[in-house]
Amino acid sequence: MSHGTSHVYISHLKEHVGQTVTIKGWLYNLRSSGKLMFPELRDGTGIVQGVVSKKAVSEKVWQDFETLTQESSVIVTGEVTKHPKLENTFELQVSDAEVLQVAQEYPITPKEHGVEFLADQRHLWLRSKRQWAIMRVRHELVNAIRDFFNERDFLLVDSPILTPNAAEGTSTLFELDYFDLGKATLTQSGQLYGEASALAFGKIYVFGPTFRAEKSKTRRHLTEFWMVEPEMAYYNLEMNMDLAEEFIEYIVQRTLKNRMEELKILERDVSKLENIKRPFPRISYDEATKILERKGVAFEYGNDLGAPDETVISSEFDRPVMVHRYPKEVKAFYMKRDPENPAVALCVDMLAPEGYGEIIGGSQREDDYEALLTRIKENELKVEDFAWYLDLRKFGSVPHAGFGLGLERTVAWVCGLEHIRETAPFPRMIHRLTP
Amino acid sequence: MSHGTSHVYISHLKEHVGQTVTIKGWLYNLRSSGKLMFPELRDGTGIVQGVVSKKAVSEKVWQDFETLTQESSVIVTGEVTKHPKLENTFELQVSDAEVLQVAQEYPITPKEHGVEFLADQRHLWLRSKRQWAIMRVRHELVNAIRDFFNERDFLLVDSPILTPNAAEGTSTLFELDYFDLGKATLTQSGQLYGEASALAFGKIYVFGPTFRAEKSKTRRHLTEFWMVEPEMAYYNLEMNMDLAEEFIEYIVQRTLKNRMEELKILERDVSKLENIKRPFPRISYDEATKILERKGVAFEYGNDLGAPDETVISSEFDRPVMVHRYPKEVKAFYMKRDPENPAVALCVDMLAPEGYGEIIGGSQREDDYEALLTRIKENELKVEDFAWYLDLRKFGSVPHAGFGLGLERTVAWVCGLEHIRETAPFPRMIHRLTP
Repeated sequence: MSHGTSHVYISHLKEHVGQTVTIKGWLYNLRSSGKLMFPELRDGTGIVQGVVSKKAVSEKVWQDFETLTQESSVIVTGEVTKHPKLENTFELQVSDAEVLQVAQEYPITPKEHGVEFLADQRHLWLRSKRQWAIMRVRHELVNAIRDFFNERDFLLVDSPILTPNAAEGTSTLFELDYFDLGKATLTQSGQLYGEASALAFGKIYVFGPTFRAEKSKTRRHLTEFWMVEPEMAYYNLEMNMDLAEEFIEYIVQRTLKNRMEELKILERDVSKLENIKRPFPRISYDEATKILERKGVAFEYGNDLGAPDETVISSEFDRPVMVHRYPKEVKAFYMKRDPENPAVALCVDMLAPEGYGEIIGGSQREDDYEALLTRIKENELKVEDFAWYLDLRKFGSVPHAGFGLGLERTVAWVCGLEHIRETAPFPRMIHRLTP
Repeated sequence: MSHGTSHVYISHLKEHVGQTVTIKGWLYNLRSSGKLMFPELRDGTGIVQGVVSKKAVSEKVWQDFETLTQESSVIVTGEVTKHPKLENTFELQVSDAEVLQVAQEYPITPKEHGVEFLADQRHLWLRSKRQWAIMRVRHELVNAIRDFFNERDFLLVDSPILTPNAAEGTSTLFELDYFDLGKATLTQSGQLYGEASALAFGKIYVFGPTFRAEKSKTRRHLTEFWMVEPEMAYYNLEMNMDLAEEFIEYIVQRTLKNRMEELKILERDVSKLENIKRPFPRISYDEATKILERKGVAFEYGNDLGAPDETVISSEFDRPVMVHRYPKEVKAFYMKRDPENPAVALCVDMLAPEGYGEIIGGSQREDDYEALLTRIKENELKVEDFAWYLDLRKFGSVPHAGFGLGLERTVAWVCGLEHIRETAPFPRMIHRLTP
């Protein structure tokens, strides 16, 4: 059966109106009405409604559809027609079908399921329309990120996952034995390697998985997440912020342009995203604390901003806000101090709107050898571990800056998701290592 | 100084001939000849020769260049001119310069260094012309890989790094403690997750770092390397091989098109690469063993092909050769048996020419529940660990296939490198975890 007709993916049906084609996929849903059945077929690229008319198909095909269960694999042939009412929607007038496997009773039905149950079934849950839409937005964002940097002559540098030292503090490290060399840790950030690479290649980006052994169970934390980290030689904090806002505008607007169907499935209020246009507001940490004060939030000046503080601050703006120049004490040792006010670091956090929190953290890096050495000692880090990093300040040191964007938080924000666990195909959290 | 002229990257100089521009970079080399000096400047995007004429610059600028050491950071202004003789080469007629830092004595000089010394200095070694060329070929290959799959409607799926079970045997696993959930291992392959995703999204690719705790010290092995793994629902072995050869042709030809300058620096014999065009030869394991026999290689029928065997076989061909249908005993449990000969697996290895060994391994996957269950038990794997993987054969099982390509081996082959350690920015091997 199905011989002589060509296999077409559902996403390409619009190019085949009037033709008889073959779809290879699975039964997503089925309605029936007397002598008509309306199977919804999915093939991973989309969903199409088939129309099975009792008089148009063989007795066997009719019976096959009558017994077909959800997620049964089936190859269906029929003519592609335009939907009588809906714009840009197509149907398949079924003439033949071949059942590969009648699926056992499928555990995920259209009714509501508990989230832990669904997480246990992640390998199947991914087949649902909502997860399909999220993964396609994730795909778009990843490619938008890569295209943004590639088009601007940034070189991709894959920093190592297995590392000997900790970039972001030692409390959240995953450790393992590395042959006879002692312990290795899973990278928390590719930044230090990014700095070495920026001084070799000018403008670079690191983009890969990073790890935090976070004991927190909040809806914002994964233990494994992807991070993109551009790093640029001869950049200062202002140039860094310019790049960060251009970058966010680019990836959001491109997702809007290419993934409207998916955002609609997710019932995302896209007006909130259409708004993500430069320039973004830039406020200092001092100004941010004044917002908190004005809003009556209890906050001690000098502390880092917590997630609730970030939500209050970002709710003042209709687009991402960049908060710069935090007190040096709450920021990492490698950040350069502001020459005009050595109490603050030349850093920036970008807070997403709608309470999605920090999506970007960045800074101008300390480029003075002695200052960096002092900072490493003050932080009780081992100087020998950072010998190569210090080298970058000996051999042609230059001003340089960069930032990191967490992919999964960005997906959560763009999709408008409650919980970050839906943003990764197979998320890892403190209580979840499977499937 | 340098005010009023615009900063230009060296890779864009050709668009600025006749203009006065500013380059921000480092001194790569310097020749002098009486009242002329010829500094080679690099900025990460390329190298340009400057011409400093004593009469054209201030006394200070002349003295600055006289004292400038290798890798000193310097901002140089001058007019862009065409090289009097060389095609597509530009020079900078220096009018001004600002020295940011005179570098300390640089450890890597144009003389020969031992490879362990260079590996210790990897953060600086990356600045050399040869490493620059390799990293740019790597960048091109990564982007060619992504574009190939994106253009063909494959969805990117990032499979997890932290995994509970081993896809490729347990002898080369990195293990770590994962909170209260016992041990986690670092992924050796994203394939099993790729299969779940292919059944959800049709055609997918996984592309990320993978890990093997290889105790071998050969020039072909890294403990951490990137792998791209496409997986396609409704594909059989033949379709898998068709895709693999189209893929390799695409990424090699694109690199040739875009990275000729880099391949020239590497002194690569590009005629060997120009040849990489479809169709590639396809031979069965049986035919491969006959080649070994004919060549007088001692080989026991039924064994896996070793690296020396692969070299002998591939040297018979001027392009990659696909060896398919190995005895089932030497291949992984998840591969489907050939219905026409159950003694062999529906698998394929692609061997690169010039002795670069296996770059692709792939197969059609076992899609029958009972057969897969039996195989898991035979291999003494825990059925409960593979419950979710078995589910894929319960709920709409379909023929599906895929393959994996090791990025670093491909970079080594395309660049014509002796040792795989040069293919990664910061390579990891049994004796190397730094810098």
